[in-house]
Amino acid sequence: MYAIAIHGGAGAVPRASLSPERELQYRAGLEAALDGGYAVLERGGSSLDAVTAAVRLLEDDPAFNAGRGAALTREGAAELDAAIMDGREQRAGAVAAVRHVKNPVELARRVMEKSRHVLLVGPGAEEFALEEGIALMPNLYFRTPERISQLEHEQRGERVSDLVPPGKGTVGAVARDRDGNLAAATSTGGMTNKRPGRVGDSPIIGAGTYAKNGVCAVSATGHGEYFIRAVAAHHVCAAVEYRGLTLELAMRELLDDILRGLGGDGGLIGVDRDGHVVMQFSTEGMYRGARDSSGRSEIAIY
Amino acid sequence: MYAIAIHGGAGAVPRASLSPERELQYRAGLEAALDGGYAVLERGGSSLDAVTAAVRLLEDDPAFNAGRGAALTREGAAELDAAIMDGREQRAGAVAAVRHVKNPVELARRVMEKSRHVLLVGPGAEEFALEEGIALMPNLYFRTPERISQLEHEQRGERVSDLVPPGKGTVGAVARDRDGNLAAATSTGGMTNKRPGRVGDSPIIGAGTYAKNGVCAVSATGHGEYFIRAVAAHHVCAAVEYRGLTLELAMRELLDDILRGLGGDGGLIGVDRDGHVVMQFSTEGMYRGARDSSGRSEIAIY
Repeated sequence: MYAIAIHGGAGAVPRASLSPERELQYRAGLEAALDGGYAVLERGGSSLDAVTAAVRLLEDDPAFNAGRGAALTREGAAELDAAIMDGREQRAGAVAAVRHVKNPVELARRVMEKSRHVLLVGPGAEEFALEEGIALMPNLYFRTPERISQLEHEQRGERVSDLVPPGKGTVGAVARDRDGNLAAATSTGGMTNKRPGRVGDSPIIGAGTYAKNGVCAVSATGHGEYFIRAVAAHHVCAAVEYRGLTLELAMRELLDDILRGLGGDGGLIGVDRDGHVVMQFSTEGMYRGARDSSGRSEIAIY
Repeated sequence: MYAIAIHGGAGAVPRASLSPERELQYRAGLEAALDGGYAVLERGGSSLDAVTAAVRLLEDDPAFNAGRGAALTREGAAELDAAIMDGREQRAGAVAAVRHVKNPVELARRVMEKSRHVLLVGPGAEEFALEEGIALMPNLYFRTPERISQLEHEQRGERVSDLVPPGKGTVGAVARDRDGNLAAATSTGGMTNKRPGRVGDSPIIGAGTYAKNGVCAVSATGHGEYFIRAVAAHHVCAAVEYRGLTLELAMRELLDDILRGLGGDGGLIGVDRDGHVVMQFSTEGMYRGARDSSGRSEIAIY
C-alpha cells in the first residue's frame, strides 16, 4: 500500500468563525497538495519526491504558514524553516532562519543530498542555495497583506481577527511509496511576532520531523517550543519501534501525556510501515488530508 | 548522591602522538572544569548551576573546541553553538551560529530563562544577548593561532598535525544535585572548515543534549550530523525511561548499533536518576572527568 498524508497546521481557525469562503479556500489548498503528492506515488515515484511535491504546493499557497504567506517576525520579515527526512538510511536535511528561499523544503533536500551537513541556518544556508543554483527571492514575495495586518494587530495587543490564518502552525507531509520507503517533510514561517532568529520544531530532526523505514514517518505542528522539549516526532517513532505501540497510541501518548504535561498542544500526522495513515491533534482543529492506494481519501479541518 | 561528569570531546589526539605536555594541559583543563562544577554541587547549588559553571570553564579554555579556541569555519570565523536543559520540567535553551558571545552556554541559559523560545540562531541570538546586557566580543577573541593553522592545513588538504586539538568535538557536562534534579549542557565550535551556518548536534535538544528528572541527563560529542539523525541523547533517555535499560546499555546500543549502523562515531556522558555517572565512546578516546559524593573522582582521555 502506498499512502500520503499532509497537514496545514494545528490550531485552526475556530469552527464558529470560519466563513464558508475561507473553508473552501483551505480545502482547495489541501486538496491540491494532496493531489500533487499522491500523483507522485501513483506513478511509482518515491515517498521523498511525494512529500517534497506536497510541501512545495503548501509553501506556495498563501493561506498556509510556510513559504509565501508565512507568519512574520516582530520586525516584519518572513523567516523560514524546513526539514526533510528519508526513512531509508535516516538521511536528513534542514534549514532555518532563511529569508529569501522560495521553497525551503527544496533547500532542505539539497542540504541532505548535496552537503556534508544536516542543518544550515541564516545567511550560510542562503549562500549554499546560491551555490546550488537556487535563485533568491526578495523577502517581499513572502509577505501577504493578511500577515502584515496580523502582525500589526498582535503588536498593538489587539485580538487578531479569526478571519486571518492562525499566527502559528506549519505545513507538512508524510508518505510511504510502493517500495515501502518512508519520508517526512515539514515547513513553516514560525510564530507571528517571533524574535528574528527564533527556530521552532519544524527543522529540528526528532522534534518536528522524523522518518525511519520499517517504523514510521512523522510531521508535527503546534507550539514548537513544546515539541522541541518533548522531542515529539522521535518520541512517537521510538514508542512504535521499541515498545510496540501503534502509531495512533504513540501519538495520543505524546499529545495527551507528554505535551499536555508540559503545557503544550498541537498535532501530528504519520504513516506506519504498512502505509496506515494516522492524524491526531489536541487543538480544536488541524488542517489535514490523507489518501492511500486502498481508496481512502479525506480532507478535514475539525 | 550528587555527581557531575564533563567531557572535552570524543576523537581525542591519537595516544601515540599525545605529548606529555599536551596531556598535562588537557588534564589540567578538565580538572579545573570538574572542580568548578563539583564545587557548586558541594555547597548545595543546583545541577543547572553546576553544568553551567563547568561548561563556562571549558569554553574559556583554548585547548577545547568551544568558546575561545573553537574550530573555525571555512571563512576563518568562529561560530558557536550551545544548549542547556533543566531536567525538572524539561525546560531548555539553545543558541547556534553566534559569533560574538563569550560564553554561549550562558546565552543558552538566558534563552531558557528569559525568552519564550528554546532556540535562537545567528544575529537574532546576539540581539537577544545585547537586550540581556551581555557584552559582545570581537570574533578575534575566539580565534587561536593553533586553530588558524589547523584551518590552513585542512584547506591545503594537508594532514593536520596531531599536536593541535582535534578539529571537531564539543564540551559538555551533566549533573545531579542534592535535590535529585538533573541537568545537561553542551557547547561547541563545530567542525574545522565547516560551512558558515552549519549547525551540529550540540544545540539540538534531543540530539546532543537532553535531561529529564527521574530518568537521566546526557551530553554527546562526535560527528554531529550522525547524532542528529539518530536523535542520540533522546534515544538514550527514552531507552532508560521506557525500556528499563541501564544508562550504560542504552549508550552502548546508541554507539554500537544505531550510530555505527549510520557510519558515525563519538561519545556520550550521562548521569542517571540515582547519580550514577556513565561515560562511553566509540572513538579512540574522549576527554572526560567525573566526580561524585561517594568519593569517585577521575580524569581520563583513553
